Amino acid sequence: MLLMIPGPVQVHERIIRAMCRQMIGHRSAEFGEILRFCADVMREVFGTKGDVFFISGSGTAGVEASIASFSKSARFVTLENGKFGERVGEIAERYAEVERLSFEWGKPFDLEKLKEALEKGANAVAFVHNETSTGMLNPAEEIAKIAKKHGALTIMDAITSAGGDYVKMDEWGIDVAIVGSQKCLGAPPGLAVVAVSEKAWDFYNPKCPYYLDLKAYKKKFAELQTPYTPAIPLFFALEEALKIIREEGLERRIARHRKLSRAVREWALNAGLKLFPEPDGKAEYSNTVTAIRIPNGITEKELRDALRKEYGILVSGGQDRVKGKIFRIGTMGNIGKLEVIATLSAIEDVLIRKELINSAIEKAMRVLGD
Amino acid sequence: MLLMIPGPVQVHERIIRAMCRQMIGHRSAEFGEILRFCADVMREVFGTKGDVFFISGSGTAGVEASIASFSKSARFVTLENGKFGERVGEIAERYAEVERLSFEWGKPFDLEKLKEALEKGANAVAFVHNETSTGMLNPAEEIAKIAKKHGALTIMDAITSAGGDYVKMDEWGIDVAIVGSQKCLGAPPGLAVVAVSEKAWDFYNPKCPYYLDLKAYKKKFAELQTPYTPAIPLFFALEEALKIIREEGLERRIARHRKLSRAVREWALNAGLKLFPEPDGKAEYSNTVTAIRIPNGITEKELRDALRKEYGILVSGGQDRVKGKIFRIGTMGNIGKLEVIATLSAIEDVLIRKELINSAIEKAMRVLGD
Repeated sequence: MLLMIPGPVQVHERIIRAMCRQMIGHRSAEFGEILRFCADVMREVFGTKGDVFFISGSGTAGVEASIASFSKSARFVTLENGKFGERVGEIAERYAEVERLSFEWGKPFDLEKLKEALEKGANAVAFVHNETSTGMLNPAEEIAKIAKKHGALTIMDAITSAGGDYVKMDEWGIDVAIVGSQKCLGAPPGLAVVAVSEKAWDFYNPKCPYYLDLKAYKKKFAELQTPYTPAIPLFFALEEALKIIREEGLERRIARHRKLSRAVREWALNAGLKLFPEPDGKAEYSNTVTAIRIPNGITEKELRDALRKEYGILVSGGQDRVKGKIFRIGTMGNIGKLEVIATLSAIEDVLIRKELINSAIEKAMRVLGD
Repeated sequence: MLLMIPGPVQVHERIIRAMCRQMIGHRSAEFGEILRFCADVMREVFGTKGDVFFISGSGTAGVEASIASFSKSARFVTLENGKFGERVGEIAERYAEVERLSFEWGKPFDLEKLKEALEKGANAVAFVHNETSTGMLNPAEEIAKIAKKHGALTIMDAITSAGGDYVKMDEWGIDVAIVGSQKCLGAPPGLAVVAVSEKAWDFYNPKCPYYLDLKAYKKKFAELQTPYTPAIPLFFALEEALKIIREEGLERRIARHRKLSRAVREWALNAGLKLFPEPDGKAEYSNTVTAIRIPNGITEKELRDALRKEYGILVSGGQDRVKGKIFRIGTMGNIGKLEVIATLSAIEDVLIRKELINSAIEKAMRVLGD
């Protein structure tokens, strides 16, 4: 099965093989070296000179660790325009007073509302950079700039951007960012990586969950260890995935992600399909997942079943309130032209058979050939 | 390196190979079948007909999920006689009023104190079944009986007992139990499995951490899914590890663990070494980890370094307040006579060279030959 979903991504053979090793002691120097290497590459990926911590758990565990660990007397404002933005709001509500700024799914944030909330006294902003549920890239730099003016803490869920698109924590002024191993890093799911600025510790809350207490991770990282037994095979895999990122180079990797997603968008628009998100120039189309409206004349289930059964390709449907209305193609990790062309061709086959679109595969090929 | 530590254990080749597969969609029927199979075997391991949930995270994540999810208006009493018992107390303090009953490390609980705490109004008891830091097996059935008399909830950390020694939740009256994948189940680290009785939900607290909220796991398990992206390779591995448990049979597996640890104890005592824990008949020696005092004339570091460098065998030292005073041999998972004899012979070699013990390896062999 070819996974063209917004994670877990297809994992490179090298990374799968890296997991085929006997366990090692997690308090050993050998494990420490893996942790040191992973932290070095992850700092590049996040664009920070700050600390980087590794949690055995999903991206959501990383987001909660960030919000909970830095929730001391914080009055949060959350920006929400999709499922994962809403999750950030739900998590923040468990730890702090929160003003949840809700916008329509797939529509840009109104940043005037953010300014108002900060003027009224909010001192922490949390949001999703790349909103996977709608295919929207939210304007992180702009948000951080506004937050900075008010001295507010910024926490950014970069779960589906870091490693596939620009994340420049130090340059933009983001204090905490989170990524999941199974997205643009190209590794299997099960690890969250959290990058933390010095300033974030002013907001440290010792009453956060024990397992997600970033101070424990900081303390143990000084000995190149994790506070609790780490998911060793996933660290073997992450190490290999990050070696691939080093070999490819981060700039080239980001350029590749951008090109692959541009090919998907060019194809969709030229085939007569409609993209779901409505960017305004500040908010942009995501470069790691493309959300497309399901055309009249076919259901989401019919489309996805045909792709799975006839071609062995898995794409995603819509979640929650857009269930049945959109389908989503992930262009994350270590895939290339082959996988994208195969996927678009298969979708064309299914939709042209029903006379719902016209062929536009050559448009995609032209982008990919650039 | 042969891992003879109390987890992560040496992983069977079949289990390592099971991880060498491409990722699958975590909302697919294929993943659902893995979850169903794992839950079936885990119910046997826990001795329960209740629910079983899978958290991508370490055993500690499972313990916190249990305490936090069932902390509604609970007044906890915790029983502590080692490092992991203390951790249970520390976690409980983040969620509830707690009376922490502390006993000397390696000494039995005074259960009269538990009765008093329950009479004074505590309505939840949390404790560690097999205390890995000291090699003590605490009297779970007895504790559950006392708790039951007072209608109290019982939460048991069975991280290093389940799968290697008897855990009979339904028979004993334990409401919640937790195990880690990397101990007696024989799988790699990174998954916690939590078993939950119906009664536990009377204590449900919706203000628990989002990632560790067992209600979300219950809701999603009904669709054979997990609420957040699971660590897929670790599920491939756990499935294979549980197939091995089914093939061996739980009773035979427990008998094997008991025999291996008995061989270690017989050897140690006959060699002239001293065991660390002081069981009283209710509390017993652990059957999955043996803690032995370091004899005068050698340091913990010297012993462990010699084993690692000369033989490629990893045993554990003591943690926290018994650091340097004891060493610990794990007899967990899918190991057998070969690994135990090799380990004891290697230790003998190092200690006899310094004239600190006499040879007793034949005593171990006699036990193993039974």
